[in-house]
Amino acid sequence: MGTVMSLPDTPDFDSFPVTRRPVAAETIPDGVRVRWDDGLESRFHVFWLRENAADPETTHPVTREQQLQLLDIPASLQAAAVRIDDDGALQVAWSTGETSRYHPGWLRAYCHEARSESSSLPPQRYWNAAAIADVPRFDGLQALNDPAAKTAWLTALHVYGVAVLENLPATPEVIETAPAAIGPIRPTNFGFAFDVVSKADATSNAYTAMTLPLHADLPTREYMPGLQFLHCLKNDAAGGESLLADGFFLAERLRALDPAAFDTMTSIPVDYYNKAKDTDYRHSTPMIRLNADGSFHEVRWTPWLRAPLDAPFETAGVVYRALRLLFSLAEDPANRIEIKLKPGDLLGFDNRRAIHGRKSFDPATGDRHLRGCYVERDELHSRLRILARQSRAAQSGSHG
Amino acid sequence: MGTVMSLPDTPDFDSFPVTRRPVAAETIPDGVRVRWDDGLESRFHVFWLRENAADPETTHPVTREQQLQLLDIPASLQAAAVRIDDDGALQVAWSTGETSRYHPGWLRAYCHEARSESSSLPPQRYWNAAAIADVPRFDGLQALNDPAAKTAWLTALHVYGVAVLENLPATPEVIETAPAAIGPIRPTNFGFAFDVVSKADATSNAYTAMTLPLHADLPTREYMPGLQFLHCLKNDAAGGESLLADGFFLAERLRALDPAAFDTMTSIPVDYYNKAKDTDYRHSTPMIRLNADGSFHEVRWTPWLRAPLDAPFETAGVVYRALRLLFSLAEDPANRIEIKLKPGDLLGFDNRRAIHGRKSFDPATGDRHLRGCYVERDELHSRLRILARQSRAAQSGSHG
Repeated sequence: MGTVMSLPDTPDFDSFPVTRRPVAAETIPDGVRVRWDDGLESRFHVFWLRENAADPETTHPVTREQQLQLLDIPASLQAAAVRIDDDGALQVAWSTGETSRYHPGWLRAYCHEARSESSSLPPQRYWNAAAIADVPRFDGLQALNDPAAKTAWLTALHVYGVAVLENLPATPEVIETAPAAIGPIRPTNFGFAFDVVSKADATSNAYTAMTLPLHADLPTREYMPGLQFLHCLKNDAAGGESLLADGFFLAERLRALDPAAFDTMTSIPVDYYNKAKDTDYRHSTPMIRLNADGSFHEVRWTPWLRAPLDAPFETAGVVYRALRLLFSLAEDPANRIEIKLKPGDLLGFDNRRAIHGRKSFDPATGDRHLRGCYVERDELHSRLRILARQSRAAQSGSHG
Repeated sequence: MGTVMSLPDTPDFDSFPVTRRPVAAETIPDGVRVRWDDGLESRFHVFWLRENAADPETTHPVTREQQLQLLDIPASLQAAAVRIDDDGALQVAWSTGETSRYHPGWLRAYCHEARSESSSLPPQRYWNAAAIADVPRFDGLQALNDPAAKTAWLTALHVYGVAVLENLPATPEVIETAPAAIGPIRPTNFGFAFDVVSKADATSNAYTAMTLPLHADLPTREYMPGLQFLHCLKNDAAGGESLLADGFFLAERLRALDPAAFDTMTSIPVDYYNKAKDTDYRHSTPMIRLNADGSFHEVRWTPWLRAPLDAPFETAGVVYRALRLLFSLAEDPANRIEIKLKPGDLLGFDNRRAIHGRKSFDPATGDRHLRGCYVERDELHSRLRILARQSRAAQSGSHG
């Protein structure tokens, strides 16, 4: 541990195991070139190195946020001399007379040439009924109290976009506490938490006893909620089974079956307006959105919150053809699963990926009462990273 | 009013004054062509008309959401016959034997050929110090209680991206009630509301007494908060003046001064990571984002929450050059305004447009205490539309 202890601080709260070591460094115009013990060469821009130094004048020692402003760095800055010191740290002597020293674990984690090695979330798996006959299920109290069990629950929620916690109390406050283990609950026009029961003066089709076709919530919001949780208090009415499908799987099927329809759905904006007395949210976006690498970012799947399409006549025909094909994929029983929530079950899903619905129920035969709330998707990503960080810290027994 | 009263319902809660009347209609393959009394011709796809009919089997009479699913409509649907009836409504006899009837005000509002006439928000005005010497100011109690005063306040907040309510109580609960007049407060890792005071164990540079350069909050979130409110409880320390600038104005200046740097800032992703013990939010996006029409959607301006840039060496040089130019525009006193908040002032601004900062203050000379919260931008848009709807309803004295 002697070598580790003399390594410089990093500008982060995380720990950075030294898996690869720099073996050589040289100055280049506007930068520094470093060679690593696995042969990788990485180049760092002088501004990049200077503004990410961990010394307390550059990085606030308490907040770890930058104190040095980019414009405080002379435009003419160059690295005058560089070397790898005995601890394996990169040392840079600047043209200004200052020096900076970089932790090799941190430097490797953030170098562009190997950035993908660090801190990525596990890959997602798209599913239909053949791939998962049931939702991933976890014991609720374990998942909320044990870090490893919590990691397993949240990893499933990320990978499959759906997971259930079982055996929680069937009491109304659970919806306000259990999802908050991930991050803050996001209030909406439906409130902080909302009750899914049949109401006479329903503000949404969800608050009736009718069949709810597969859909996502609140596509009318630019910031459509990322995670939805539904906690079951009662479910003894005849009917009311929950339906779930993977919107990313369905979008992938559309891409394979009809590339032109897929192009339509990823490029032509669809309009979503809510219908309510007190709110008038509007958002226009292609129904399927891709990440820069072509993977799926979001599917905004709420058939009945589409506003009258704002498109030329010919485009409307193209959009309707693609929409009908996409919706028909969700009608195929092979592409959906059906579960009946039990009192105490907490169903969570990615509302921008998984679509949900329910069969109609008969309020005369019993009660059906779910309580719901929303949490943002990036709270899940943050929580998974923090759990991984804590696991690394526990393994290494040291910080930085 | 006799003619109006016999018009069909619309599928919306809004009212639709009949400003233009259809004078002729004819069937076309897959659609209907309508000619209006101002000469406009509009074409409607059969699926568009069929799924937006206002009859109670298509549109739920209470929720006004669609009950008819798109796949319930036969793929072969055609309009068999159409006419404009004596009330000015479009009547369509479908090939299935059903008929639908459309309110001419609604039909005109939603036809693609004239869609921009309806429901648009007022245009935004970009500003520097010469354009607005001070922030738009409104009496707080009036703005919260009178619809016309509320509309004036929220319109300024939309148009300029900044507005102050004055003369509110300087009590802690105001931050939890006044912004909620727009829409739900969005909790974050900073809490439901947050206190901006100097703290020993600061989780952000905001919670120190140091100068805060111009910036936006929480750029590390995919869903960066849209509106920020800061309510002043005390401000008698020496220093602590608030600084404000219009990020859209600055971005527009960049576009004029250096189109290549502007292209860099609108196309190359910048990485934002937060630094905290308990959260690890990450988001990667170009710093300036445009709408489809080239107008500004968002400027994500937080110099010190940029993570180490993940870009090839040459790209890093290009990005740093553009960043330095953009940041230097914000340093020009001509491009920023300075105000000193008084106890009872509620400063609101678009956190994805306006950037804010403060001069350092000396905690030995007095107290500085602000309380803040966030609300989403589309809550503001929704509220402005509802206020306009209510104003139209008050003027027309009728609904639908």
